[in-house]
Amino acid sequence: MKLLEDRILKDGVVKEGNVLKVDSFLNHQMDINLFNAMGKEFKKLFKDHNINKIVTIEASGICIACIVAQHFDVPVVFAKKTESINLDGAVYSVPVESFTHKRTSNVIVSKKYLQPQDHVLIIDDFLANGCALEGLISIVNSAGATVEGIGIAIEKGFQNGGEIIRGKGIHLESLAIVESMNHETGEILFR
Amino acid sequence: MKLLEDRILKDGVVKEGNVLKVDSFLNHQMDINLFNAMGKEFKKLFKDHNINKIVTIEASGICIACIVAQHFDVPVVFAKKTESINLDGAVYSVPVESFTHKRTSNVIVSKKYLQPQDHVLIIDDFLANGCALEGLISIVNSAGATVEGIGIAIEKGFQNGGEIIRGKGIHLESLAIVESMNHETGEILFR
Repeated sequence: MKLLEDRILKDGVVKEGNVLKVDSFLNHQMDINLFNAMGKEFKKLFKDHNINKIVTIEASGICIACIVAQHFDVPVVFAKKTESINLDGAVYSVPVESFTHKRTSNVIVSKKYLQPQDHVLIIDDFLANGCALEGLISIVNSAGATVEGIGIAIEKGFQNGGEIIRGKGIHLESLAIVESMNHETGEILFR
Repeated sequence: MKLLEDRILKDGVVKEGNVLKVDSFLNHQMDINLFNAMGKEFKKLFKDHNINKIVTIEASGICIACIVAQHFDVPVVFAKKTESINLDGAVYSVPVESFTHKRTSNVIVSKKYLQPQDHVLIIDDFLANGCALEGLISIVNSAGATVEGIGIAIEKGFQNGGEIIRGKGIHLESLAIVESMNHETGEILFR
């Protein structure tokens, strides 16, 4: 998606350790107009799927998921990273390692909000090693629901998450795939 | 706001310990159409303020803030509850105690995304003892920016957060104020 690639080139910053900072528009300060353009694009890319629910994971996936959900006219369920006293009752739970935070959290979704009849589009901001997505796929499968597709804003094409997910036969669409980036020159190349 | 009050009466569940569970539509599964109605209402309630940014706190405030932001045509900044290797550089930081989780987190916003010229509407899902809001107000003040107002989905009127915030002279609007609730009968009364 050219609009997103152009924005990454304009406002993204490459840091050491394969970190791409896009916190001025994607995951700290958030450009809602950009997210609506992304929602329109996802709607086009997943037009052949009947989707009745969007699932994402806290925190930075939530805003994108909620804006995208308007283009599908469906509710959003976000997976929580810690247990809460407000989430009593039965939950689906899976451990997920965060690339960014270098730690493992327990990711949970209440069983009430994922049912066998659900056809789910998973939305997230980043795809790197795919751990978070594999956790969400596992949760959707545990519920007997169907993963219709996965929509990602930025995929790091030089990490293996995309390959793993596509290898499962899942319809994965990333709006921008970074093929390589260099923190010394600041150069970012897209696939 | 009658639409929200009716939804709380229909789908909210009162639990022991002054917990109001609204996770079927507000803070785990999220009804985007309801949030758009709330955004329209907030736009009306804050029509006399010039707002150029919405600030919220992760995680459950993010979705409401992002949908509401469309009605103001402004970006959203969400305060993060833990430090991240992606949030390097200068940050505003304040400790905040969570009523729900009974623990204290460090809440941070990058200095880049709050500036003295910002006129901020703070959005959150719940107001109970007001700790989270006081943290956000403190962060906005530290930046030299202006809190134009605070928009809350559900205020627990029997806790003192609303009184404290209004006592500061801040324009606070809660779309539903719960005056009392009873976990034995399930009764919920609004102010």
